[in-house]
This record gives sequence, structure tokens and C-alpha cells, in this order.
Amino acid sequence: MASSWVPDISPSSDFSLANIPFGIISTPDDAGPHVAVAIGSYALDLKVLAANADLTQVFPGLNGLTEAFSQPTLNAFAEMGRTVHRQVRAGIQDLLSTATTHPSILRDNDSLRTKALLRQSAIKMHLPMSIGDYTDFYAGYHHAYAVGVMFRGPANALQPNYLHLPVGYHGRASSIVVSGTPVRRPVGQILLDPKEPQQPPVTAPSRKLDMELELGCFLARGNEMGRGVAVGEADEYIFGYVLLNDWSARDVQTWEYVPLGPFNGKNFASTISPWVVLADALEPFRARAVENATELQGYLREGREESVFDIGLEVDLTTAEGDTTTIGRTSSKHLLWSFPQMIAHHTLGGCPMRTGDLLGSGTISGPGGVGERGSLLEMTENGKKEVLLYGMDVRTFLKDGDTVTLRGFCGAEGARVGFGECRGRIYSAGA
Amino acid sequence: MASSWVPDISPSSDFSLANIPFGIISTPDDAGPHVAVAIGSYALDLKVLAANADLTQVFPGLNGLTEAFSQPTLNAFAEMGRTVHRQVRAGIQDLLSTATTHPSILRDNDSLRTKALLRQSAIKMHLPMSIGDYTDFYAGYHHAYAVGVMFRGPANALQPNYLHLPVGYHGRASSIVVSGTPVRRPVGQILLDPKEPQQPPVTAPSRKLDMELELGCFLARGNEMGRGVAVGEADEYIFGYVLLNDWSARDVQTWEYVPLGPFNGKNFASTISPWVVLADALEPFRARAVENATELQGYLREGREESVFDIGLEVDLTTAEGDTTTIGRTSSKHLLWSFPQMIAHHTLGGCPMRTGDLLGSGTISGPGGVGERGSLLEMTENGKKEVLLYGMDVRTFLKDGDTVTLRGFCGAEGARVGFGECRGRIYSAGA
Ligand SMILES: [Ca+2]
Ligand SMILES: [Ca+2]
Ligand SMILES: [Mg+2]
Ligand SMILES: [Mg+2]
Ligand code: NI
Repeated sequence: MASSWVPDISPSSDFSLANIPFGIISTPDDAGPHVAVAIGSYALDLKVLAANADLTQVFPGLNGLTEAFSQPTLNAFAEMGRTVHRQVRAGIQDLLSTATTHPSILRDNDSLRTKALLRQSAIKMHLPMSIGDYTDFYAGYHHAYAVGVMFRGPANALQPNYLHLPVGYHGRASSIVVSGTPVRRPVGQILLDPKEPQQPPVTAPSRKLDMELELGCFLARGNEMGRGVAVGEADEYIFGYVLLNDWSARDVQTWEYVPLGPFNGKNFASTISPWVVLADALEPFRARAVENATELQGYLREGREESVFDIGLEVDLTTAEGDTTTIGRTSSKHLLWSFPQMIAHHTLGGCPMRTGDLLGSGTISGPGGVGERGSLLEMTENGKKEVLLYGMDVRTFLKDGDTVTLRGFCGAEGARVGFGECRGRIYSAGA
Repeated sequence: MASSWVPDISPSSDFSLANIPFGIISTPDDAGPHVAVAIGSYALDLKVLAANADLTQVFPGLNGLTEAFSQPTLNAFAEMGRTVHRQVRAGIQDLLSTATTHPSILRDNDSLRTKALLRQSAIKMHLPMSIGDYTDFYAGYHHAYAVGVMFRGPANALQPNYLHLPVGYHGRASSIVVSGTPVRRPVGQILLDPKEPQQPPVTAPSRKLDMELELGCFLARGNEMGRGVAVGEADEYIFGYVLLNDWSARDVQTWEYVPLGPFNGKNFASTISPWVVLADALEPFRARAVENATELQGYLREGREESVFDIGLEVDLTTAEGDTTTIGRTSSKHLLWSFPQMIAHHTLGGCPMRTGDLLGSGTISGPGGVGERGSLLEMTENGKKEVLLYGMDVRTFLKDGDTVTLRGFCGAEGARVGFGECRGRIYSAGA
């Protein structure tokens, strides 16, 4: 990878020149949310760039970018399609390279650089997309297996449909929040002793508040209602990826979910990382998915070996006292189904997708021990064991004041492609 | 009720002067969707009215209506709140009354009447709201009981949570279509013999395509994330009601729904009637809900006896040959939970609602025989019995070319408050 003239890019930065993720920012000079990319510890304000430079030089043949870059969401840019995303990312990589072919536009233009290149610490991040619908899948094989063993034993761990189709459910689009948004502990109906289903429930703050480590996928385009998307064409429908923490109130979920699935146990908040890593940025990090010996239905046969990505994932828990422990480390390759398979399945019956729709992978856990798990449910065997934190503190589920931070990146030092932080702090149901 | 000067209002019209439902139309003169109300077989174009009359005379003290009436959805009008809806409905009722206090504005204004009062047959209806999220509940007690008996026997017909909370699931907002939109038979994964779960599934057009008779409720306003809506305040969050046909592919649903709920079995289409009957128009038709002997959690105690509406509901099935049979007749009073209870439960954990969100009641069936059922699943005991149609034709589930039409109304002849049609025709998966 070429080097960048942008100052102070740490070799461990998620936002190397190899990445160029897109996000929605507001700035001290412009309170209206608009488009930027991340580079090192800076953001390049693309609205300011478009207003002050001749974009046709940087992105020859592309129209409508000035308009798209001043929108309050990435939807307009996403709708322009993969070919445009590729060309724009390449143009920005050139602009930010030490050996840029257009030095006068930004590298050597003090006045524009001062206006357009802003420290990330000085800007505010917003939800990157207007999300029409949000669907959460359950493609994390080791998570589904571990949870199944916990509740039904090893013989029946996986439900009969699990290996045949990407199981998923419709989530609540209005509850998606951007990293940093505080999350209130939900109140809900719970059974104090789930082994006694005849006892009446109580209404109380959840005692089993959990996180779920997921990869989120934003769609660039929609399909016509009634017409499915072929698995081999689904790549063209993908805009990019974020980290997703699907906060879950396990006690609420246990009582409510039969027979129609999770509801209040999930719809109080789901947090995403603010920068959308474009699909093309992850292409070099393809990996094989979890092997599935089941003969797949034709519409799910992807015909490529490396259908998922090997993104290193981490979960940090920071206590109210400020002590941080990394409680989980795994990889996004531990999925049974790829996002193209999820899209093909989601649209099989004709369900219309739209630009900005968000798909969650489901909780991602590794095949190994407690340290590879993507939820406290698994790490603690539903509260039976404790997770050890820094300073001999322990957790079964989350306490008020806890902060959960997800991280994810791939690539070598100096050329990392990462997501930054997906962070949320729990505050009291009584506050 | 006063009488109206609008010509040809049939005594059996759903759109009497007592109703005044709101919808989104486009017209031969104005292809841009905008706001109208229905009166008899006419629509009153409120955008044209606002452009040609002094609205401050009709709706004194109200600002922003001209702007709201030219929007492509009812969201802006809904956001203005129940007090405004009440005042605007009353103002329009006056304007359309024989004894209107403002005869010169419309009744005696030939030129404006010609422009603003349009035959419904000459206009096109559109989706009335921009729907952020759609939630489908399961509050039809006799439906839930009958389906439970079918699959688990009478002793376990209702799940342990059913009498304690309004069970619901997140639906797919993008799949909501307006009455008249053709519905493609979905393809899906199905087990040809569900009694043999070890056999592999097939991918095929659904053989068990069904309808579900439901009442839909549109929200006028949202709540702050993290803050629930008290059941006693939920009326203020309700804009109005529509009929909802929650088309369901039973074979797809049976195979996919464990453990996360319905997905492709539901997300291919749900049809709503185009005119939103304002909450105030239904107030005279309150009725008691299905009795629930369970001690309710405090947040669900509504403290009024008549928490639902007694709307007469009908299901017509029209074959490709054009023969129509009314296959079901029931009432919307057969609900265990009211919409205020659904709203209080939905927001209990802090889930944010938004203007335009749609809530479905769940399938509504009466306590009586086959003729009171709101789905073919119940009428045919999951395909075991046949429903007899006109001319000795029969159905277990829907055939290609079948049209399902839902109707609903209350009130005496000449003062009916009804919904018009909620209609959809099935076309072949191969088309
Ligand atoms: Ca999840
Ligand atoms: Ca339903
Ligand atoms: Mg969530
Ligand atoms: Mg539906
Ligand atoms: Ni007056």
C-alpha cells in the first residue's frame, strides 16, 4: 500500500490508506450532518472538499457526488452502486497518497486542508444510513451450537432448519443507534424463576442484560418486490460493513419469545460503529465459512470457497471505575452463512429490500473456549459462571455503568482495515 | 348525523359524513401523491382545497395544513396530533354538511367543487403513510386459541406468556402495500411432509398460501428512546386505523419459524386498505375486549372497560372466474389486548416508536364456527377440510388468480364508519 501524507497515522490505526470508510459527521463549522471518510485520526470532510475542489478531476466521469456528499445519510452515495464506490474510494486513496497525482487539490493546498481535514476528536458522528428495515440473522455457528447445547443438550443443539437456511428475524430499525449513544437498561416482564412457568411474571429492570458481537451489512440497492436476488448477484447489493452490538435482555427474551421470536428483549437498542467499511476494502480478507456438510438448496449455492471475511474481533468491558478487560476475541469467519446467502434467502419469496437496509450476522463466537465467545450468555453459561475482570472484579451479566466496546480489524500494521469503536454504556433503568 | 350535499352518498357507503377518513391520492391533474378525504363515492382533494380556499376560515387557528396536505404521505398531518385531527375532521364535516356554516367555500362554489371533489373511480390511491417500523401482534384470542388447539391440543393451546403480555413480532415495513397491489405467490423452503423432519426441504412455490384478517393501527407520534408510553396516555399516540391482510405462507412459516419467529412466511407482502379512519371516528363504537381473568402487570392495566372497537369484519374470496363468496364474518372486538396495551408493552423497555409506525392486531376470529374465522388455516384446520365457495368450488388454501377482499364497518345506514376495501389478487410464482 502507498503511504499517506496525512500526519500521525499510527501503524495500528484502523483507518489506513487501505481502508477509507465512509461516515456521517457534523463539525464545529457545519452542524448539518454530511459525508466524510476516515483517515488515521482525521476525517476528510467530503462536503467541504466538493465545495472547494473540482471533483471531476479526482473522480472523472462521475456526476452527482457533490449532492450525495452533502446529504445527512450515506443512502444517496450507496445508491450510486459498487462501481462508483470503487472509483470514489480509489480517487480518495490517490488524493491522500504521498505520491498523489493531484497534489495541488489537497496535499499542497494549505487552506483547503485546514478546512477539510479535521481531527476525529473535534467532530460528531451520526447514524451513517437511513435504515428502512433491519434484519438480524443467526449465522454464527458456534454461538447457535453453544446456546443450543445450553438449552436443549448436544443431541438437539441445532434446530432441524438451522443447516438448511439462514435463520433470521425482523428487528426494529428505529432502535439502531450510533456508537457512543448511552443505552438504558430495559424494564420488562420477566419470570424470576424460569423453571416455574406457573408463577406470575414481574415487571422489573432486566437482571440479565447482555451484549452480542455481530457484523452488520448495509445494502446499496433494493430489489423489485416479488423478484429474488440470485446469490451470485448479491455482492452488487452490498454497500459495506459495520460492527453491531445487539444488546439483549435475556430474561425478557426467555419469557416473551415463544412462539413469535425476540421482541422487547432486543428492541430497546442496537449499537453500530459509525464508519461504514466499503465492501471492496474487505475483499483482500476473504476466508472460508464454517463448513456445512448439508446439501444446500440451489438458491443458496454460492459457488465460491471464500464467502466470508477473516476480521479479528474483540469485546472490551470497561467498568464504571474505568478498568477495561478484553473478555472475548474471535473472527468474523465463524459464520455458517455468508451475507450473499442471507440476501438470497431474505428475498427468495420476493421480500423487497431497500438501500440502507441493515443485516446483522448473528452473534459471532469461535469454536474455542470462553475467551472466544461473543455474548455473556455463552461466557457465563447463562449466569452460572463468572467472567473474571481486571482487579478480580467479576460479571455474569452487565452492571449499570458498564461500557461494552467492540473492535474489529484485518490487515498488517500500516495497512489495516478496521471499524474503529462500537461502544455503548449502560445506564440505570431508574435514571 | 347531519346530511351532506355531496351527491349520491349511498346509505351503505363506508364513507358517510360520520367518517371522513384520510388517504393519499394522485389525480389526472396532479400526478404527485397528496392528501384527500373520502366522502361517499367521492374524494375531496385537500391540496386543491387548500390552494383555492381560505383554510383559516374552516380551521381557525391551525397553521401548516396547506403544507401538510401537499405531502406525499399523511405523516406530517399525523404529527400535528389528535387535537388537530379532531378539529380538521370537524371542519370538513361542516364544509360537507347540507347546513354548512361556510356555504360559499365549497357547497356553492361550482368551480372549486369541480376541481376538488373527484370520483374515487378517477383517482389512484397510494400507501397512506411512510412506515418506519411495522409490528404484528397476536391479540386475536380465538385465533390464537384455535391455532394452539390445532398444533398442541386444548390443554396447551395458549403459551404460558399469552395471557400476561401482548405477544408480537417485528414485521417487514418494506413489504406493506396498498389495496389493489397484486401479490406474487412466494417461493420458499418447505418440508413436503412436516411429520418427517429428517427429510430434506424443497424450494418451491408455497402450497399453503393464506390470508389473515387484521386491524392495523397507525401511530401519530413517537416516544423518546428509553421512555415508555403509559397505557393511559397511549390514545394520544394513535392516528387511525386500516384493515390489514397479513398474507402468510403456512408451509414456509412452519419450517422456518423455530426459534426466531416468522420471516419469509410473512415478509413477501401485507396489504392495507388505503383510507385511514381517524381514531375519533371510531370512538362511538367502543366495546369490551375478550375477558382476561389473569392479574395484569400494572403497566397493562388500562382502567376502562371498553378498550376495543366493535367493527363488523368480512372476508370475501373471489375466484379467477369472478365468483365471490363471503368466507368469514367477525368483529374487531374479539381481541384480548387493546392497541393502547400493545403500545404500552412495545415501549416498556424503551423501544422508540415513530410517527407512521404500523401495528397489526393479529388475526381476528370470532368464538363461533368456521364462518367466523379470520384465516384459511383455521377454516380448513390446516388444509384438512375444505371451504365451500359459490358454484360448489372449494379451497383449502389460495389458488393463483384468487382475490381476497377484506371489509369492515360500524354504524347505522347513512352514518357508517367503514374502511372501504382491502384487496389483493394472487398471481403465479412462475409469472
Ligand atoms: Ca442477535
Ligand atoms: Ca399476523
Ligand atoms: Mg438489538
Ligand atoms: Mg405480512
Ligand atoms: Ni367558521
